[in-house]
This record gives sequence, structure tokens and C-alpha cells, in this order.
Amino acid sequence: MLEFLRLSAERRIETVSIWGDEITKVGDADALAALRDYGLKVSGYNRIGPFVPECLSRAEAELERAARFGADHVFLFTGGFLEGERDLAAARQRAEVHIGSLLNMARQVGVKLALEPLHPMLAGDRALITSLTHANDLCDVLGHGIGVVVDVYHLWWDERLEVEVMRAGRAGRLLGFHVNDWLIPTRHLLADRGMMGDGVIDLPAIERMMRRAGFRGPVEVEIFSTDWWARDPAEVMDIALARCQRLFSEEPA
Amino acid sequence: MLEFLRLSAERRIETVSIWGDEITKVGDADALAALRDYGLKVSGYNRIGPFVPECLSRAEAELERAARFGADHVFLFTGGFLEGERDLAAARQRAEVHIGSLLNMARQVGVKLALEPLHPMLAGDRALITSLTHANDLCDVLGHGIGVVVDVYHLWWDERLEVEVMRAGRAGRLLGFHVNDWLIPTRHLLADRGMMGDGVIDLPAIERMMRRAGFRGPVEVEIFSTDWWARDPAEVMDIALARCQRLFSEEPA
Repeated sequence: MLEFLRLSAERRIETVSIWGDEITKVGDADALAALRDYGLKVSGYNRIGPFVPECLSRAEAELERAARFGADHVFLFTGGFLEGERDLAAARQRAEVHIGSLLNMARQVGVKLALEPLHPMLAGDRALITSLTHANDLCDVLGHGIGVVVDVYHLWWDERLEVEVMRAGRAGRLLGFHVNDWLIPTRHLLADRGMMGDGVIDLPAIERMMRRAGFRGPVEVEIFSTDWWARDPAEVMDIALARCQRLFSEEPA
Repeated sequence: MLEFLRLSAERRIETVSIWGDEITKVGDADALAALRDYGLKVSGYNRIGPFVPECLSRAEAELERAARFGADHVFLFTGGFLEGERDLAAARQRAEVHIGSLLNMARQVGVKLALEPLHPMLAGDRALITSLTHANDLCDVLGHGIGVVVDVYHLWWDERLEVEVMRAGRAGRLLGFHVNDWLIPTRHLLADRGMMGDGVIDLPAIERMMRRAGFRGPVEVEIFSTDWWARDPAEVMDIALARCQRLFSEEPA
């Protein structure tokens, strides 16, 4: 994590998202000191979930930790089915109830929660909320303190994308914008995302959509990929920055 | 293909779907004779597409062939993006225009067209219509002679599924029902479908939904899977039939 923060700062990146597990490896104090020394802002804190008792019982501590790190929002990761479960509507309802409880907690701690709809191919396995429509509907019900993060990988295919991005924008709940690309062929459901520009997603069009919807935050790069993970992190970051500068109108974060 | 027809008939299966490529391997005359001798009805004819000039120019001949084989409906397979294309809305619009032309042709030939929405993970690669909502919207615009096929693999995750199945039922456009299962983990985007009961799809619930929506047709098994393809076809068919009998209220086709 410390190397990631140093490489980010060297490249004049101003905002990063962080992972609780990675913080734990270096210790809260060192991670906080690095963020402060480099002058980095924290966008998203990953994450609360999966929604099993073990994780839910740690939720308040995680929210407080995210607040200490100055995170703008904390990701909710529902996880999928319980063992043997097949009723998707019931599983979704259970997740919604958990999210309601977590929101009460987050309001008291003073951090925002972020719903990030994941790709339908992850339904039941790692996700229960698999459309921006569902996330928007849920935010409508729950009220303030919760918003959505748009990740192009998960949502680019949806014919409702523009309508739902605009809806989220009008409600003032667009918390984040994650970029990467969809490769053809995609060889693995989790770890074969593409570098921006290498796939088929119309990234400039989706960024313009986000800006029209009023999103003023950073463009965040998130590429789960065994190919890119295997390469030199500094090189990957330079390539990602160059692609962002080519594809997007605003500076990446 | 002839072995498949024989194995089907031996198991008192009454209805099958067929593939043009497989018919070509044995010749139209022998395929027709086998269907007649075994007393098998034809549900779907696969397929018209991808929508590239080479396939579109053969469309009328394919429709006539499907009619000769007595197919209830002919599958439209849009394919995905053209080389270098990234504008999904434009690609969808182009596909819709092609479907309109093909529908005129199909009405003259006297066969129905079937839209089968494919899973969003196939968007841009092999599919452009990736939700039952989109398929229903398009059928509303196009009028008679076109309907939808519900494949649980492609649609099980969609929170709109019940609403859209009911909508298709009210419009009298439910042409087919394909079953298989979604495995966790799924190791490949195209060829890792599961046998009914081995995955997480609530198959009995979706079959009841189809019946409530007025679907009276057969339950059709369609398992694209390198694992199942590698096994003895007779054994696979026996397993599939046993699973259908356990999971579904009506006899499989």
C-alpha cells in the first residue's frame, strides 16, 4: 500500500481509494502518516462485507476506521447467496435490510455509504445488487447518507445506463466513477478486466454522461486483472494515466 | 444430429430444436426423414445471424428451410460489435433495423422469429439484446410474427424477470423456455453452463412463472458445456430428463 501511495503522489494523483486489508498489513498509523505526508485525499474505503455475521459484527469498527482515514464513502459489498440458497429475491431483500441497519450506523459515525452495482455475471456469487436501477430504487427508499458508484465494467451494457446515471445525478448521489475496460474475449469472470482503451466500452461517452449528470469527482482507475497485476506497478500507473489523459476531458484523480 | 434425434425419440421426447449447421452435415433429406420417422416436432430453428452481410444474404433461404422443417420459430442471433465499434446504442439500433427487415421476410415465408436476450456478459461480443425488457420493447414496436424465448441462464439474475415474463405472456409472445443452470464458480463465459440442479438458479420458481404467464410449450434443455459435451450423449440425456422430472411440474419436451 505504501508503494502505491508513493507512486500515486509522484504522479501528482490527488485522490486514492483504499482497502482495509491493505491498511492492516502496514498498520493504521503508517498508512495515515503516508496519506498525510503525500497530501492524498481518500475517495472510497473498501469495504463492509460480505454480509455474513463475521463481517457485519465488525461493521461499526470499519466505519469508524474509514472516518479516521477521511474517506468520502465506504463501499458495501453484499456478497452473494448463503450456502444452498437459491431465492434471489429473498437474498436481495435480506441485503436491503442489512443495508438499512448499516446506514443508521454510518449516519451516526458520519460517513457515507456507497452502493456499487456489480455485473450480473457476479449475481449470487459476489453480488446481489446488479443494476443501477436497483441501487437507485434502494437509495430512494433509504434517504440521505447513501449513494452510488458507477463502475463502467459492471454497467456499460445496460440500456438503462444513461437514464439511471441522470437519475442518480438529480438525486445528488453520484459518489464515484470507476474506469477500466471490457475485453473481447473476456477469459475470466473476476480477473480479466482491461486497461482503458483496450476493450469495447465507449469510455469518453460514459464520462460525458457522468459530467452531464453533475458528477464533479475524480475518475478512478480500477483494473482487476492477473495480467496487469503481474506487471511493474509504476509502469501500469503510467500507462493508465496516459490512457486517462487521452480518453477523458478532466484530469484523472 | 441423427443420433440426437434417435436418442430423443427413444426417450419419448416429443419436441426438439435444431441447428442449420448440423442439418447440413447430414443433408436436409435425411434430417427431415428422421424427424418424420420419429414423429418429432420442431420447436426452434437455429439460427439467422450474426447480422453480417454474409449471413443476412442467406436469411431468406434459412427462413424457407426452417419452414420446410416445420419449425415453430427461428432464432435471431444478432452477434456483437463490428470491428472497432464501441457505440452500443448505435449497434443496437442497427440490429433493430435488421430485425425489422427480417420480420417482413419471415411473415412472407410464414415462420415466427424469436428474440432470445443473451446474458449481459456477452454484450458486444455475441449479443446486442441483453434484457427481456429490450426484447419486449422491440416486439411491441414490431407487431405480430415475432416473440421471445426465455433462457434461464441469460435472464435469471434480472430483477425485472417476473414483470417482463408476465408482459410477454400477456402479449402472447412467449415462444420458448430454455433450462440449464448457473454454476458458482462459472469458469468460462460461453461453455460452462450447468446441468439443472447443479447451480443456483431457482428453476421451479421460474417454470411456475412461465406457466402463470400462460406458456404452454415444452421445457427445453440447452447446456453449453465442455464438461457435458465430453460425456456420453445418452447418459447426459438421461440425467437431464431425471432432473427435469424432479424440478418441473410438466413433462419436459
